[in-house]
Amino acid sequence: MHTDLVAALDIGGTKIAGALVDGHGRILLRAQRATPAQEDGDTVMRAVEDVIGELTGSPLWSRARAVGIGSAGPVDASAGTVSPVNVPGWRDYPLVERVRKATAGLLVELIGDGVAITAAEHWQGAARGHDNALCMVVSTGVGGGLVLNGQLHPGPTGNAGHIGHISVELNGDLCPCGSRGCVERIASGPNIARRALEGGWQPGPDGDTSAAAVAEAARAGDPVAVASFERAAQALAAGIAATATLVEIDIAVIGGGVGKAGDILFTPLRKALADYATLSFVRRLTVAPALMGTDAGLVGAAAAALSRNPSETGAGV
Amino acid sequence: MHTDLVAALDIGGTKIAGALVDGHGRILLRAQRATPAQEDGDTVMRAVEDVIGELTGSPLWSRARAVGIGSAGPVDASAGTVSPVNVPGWRDYPLVERVRKATAGLLVELIGDGVAITAAEHWQGAARGHDNALCMVVSTGVGGGLVLNGQLHPGPTGNAGHIGHISVELNGDLCPCGSRGCVERIASGPNIARRALEGGWQPGPDGDTSAAAVAEAARAGDPVAVASFERAAQALAAGIAATATLVEIDIAVIGGGVGKAGDILFTPLRKALADYATLSFVRRLTVAPALMGTDAGLVGAAAAALSRNPSETGAGV
Repeated sequence: MHTDLVAALDIGGTKIAGALVDGHGRILLRAQRATPAQEDGDTVMRAVEDVIGELTGSPLWSRARAVGIGSAGPVDASAGTVSPVNVPGWRDYPLVERVRKATAGLLVELIGDGVAITAAEHWQGAARGHDNALCMVVSTGVGGGLVLNGQLHPGPTGNAGHIGHISVELNGDLCPCGSRGCVERIASGPNIARRALEGGWQPGPDGDTSAAAVAEAARAGDPVAVASFERAAQALAAGIAATATLVEIDIAVIGGGVGKAGDILFTPLRKALADYATLSFVRRLTVAPALMGTDAGLVGAAAAALSRNPSETGAGV
Repeated sequence: MHTDLVAALDIGGTKIAGALVDGHGRILLRAQRATPAQEDGDTVMRAVEDVIGELTGSPLWSRARAVGIGSAGPVDASAGTVSPVNVPGWRDYPLVERVRKATAGLLVELIGDGVAITAAEHWQGAARGHDNALCMVVSTGVGGGLVLNGQLHPGPTGNAGHIGHISVELNGDLCPCGSRGCVERIASGPNIARRALEGGWQPGPDGDTSAAAVAEAARAGDPVAVASFERAAQALAAGIAATATLVEIDIAVIGGGVGKAGDILFTPLRKALADYATLSFVRRLTVAPALMGTDAGLVGAAAAALSRNPSETGAGV
């Protein structure tokens, strides 16, 4: 039996990925291009059209019923536009209209990349079965998304769950977003590495100064490396506790490169969470590592498209 | 024509108010008792039963179809219990079951007091017409509630919107809740007054050291009083911006005694909001004073009951 499919696009500052996905979240066809992030807007769009072209060229395309897009933000789902921080050629760029044209008028659903990851984790990953969840990506930046009352909560513009840019330190360091003391400014991979270096941590002979190298040093017992992860964990805990206190989530799922640090992150995170999540209704809050891999963005974009497409019933978002 | 009514209860640490309310939010009958807050649980419940007794004794009672309760928190709507911080005799107290018995089995809807205020402001006050709103009470404590996608968002336990206990200062002062740097620990009336006194502010001849007296001094130009309100405004702004960044609200409504300070609060608050609400999708966020008066808790409790009672259609929550 030939069931309907959806097309999914995962648009980031490094790559543009596309796929045809079935109602069970299986990827049947893939396409990918590097993002020409520093080029003008039309050049970036041509890369997207190349990816779409590979999908429409397949015999499977006749079964595609809708398109889901998860894009680096900010996005504006109500206007159908995107303004990814790392793609300066796109400011209020009418991505939904362009993708609709490139797909002969299919329905196009746009969400932010943090929301897409959340849709994937809720459908098939660590947030499955949870009606109220926060899913986060902690890597170069810190992003996220929310599930509330069993439904994805993208918000009116598709950006809800932007936990990386809530301030947990009123008078903290200035963040590139313009605010101060943002979770991302403290807990992102580059900030974990920066703080370790400033504290006197020395990279190994390979010169690797990434957060992954700091995590390795922390596992080997380097106190400066441990302290940098503890500080990141404290900021993440304050942000997660704030989210739970505001909207009553019962699980926070953490993915991304920093999320892969394992106990070096999760042990101080669980400890700090007990300090900040104090009210009775948030004390049962748990944290868990993400389960979806690098396809989370594509699977989540597909889930968003399926949830708006009544002919499909596979997606639980 | 004799339309249906609902009974509303507003339960706080100082008073227990009750009312019969119609589908337009009009209060047709009132009853009130002081809360015997330091007595045992059954004594507190007898005060609630006295209030209910005044309502059931009225000929209007035959038209009552449901009961809405807004209670000081934390509450647990899923269990039907309440544990108000200022009523130590009630811990996991089965209020819903007791009220059901006292009203001959009417349907009982329980929400936290911040959620009740929000229901009232959304139905008839400053948040009317806004599909995504935060409503706050800033007085002895700082409470709140959320409207998301046009609906009240009480959360699974009825406590969502607890903005007073999100941390905006990771390593800030210890809060009675156990966390650090909570919005309430910085912005509540008693904390505004404490900070002014610590900074050298001197009360007038009447010896009034309330936040209202600090506000009056600030209006007269006292720099320490002004600074204490600016600091409260900064904490409120960080908390409001965090909420908007997480769930995409477009208005924050502020009531309570401190909310009545007017420009002394709202001018620095709007300024600070521009510092913390920086992402494109939160820049249009506005703040406004609450419009509902002291009946907000009763009207909101009524709204919650009406929204669960299909025979009524007056409440827009």
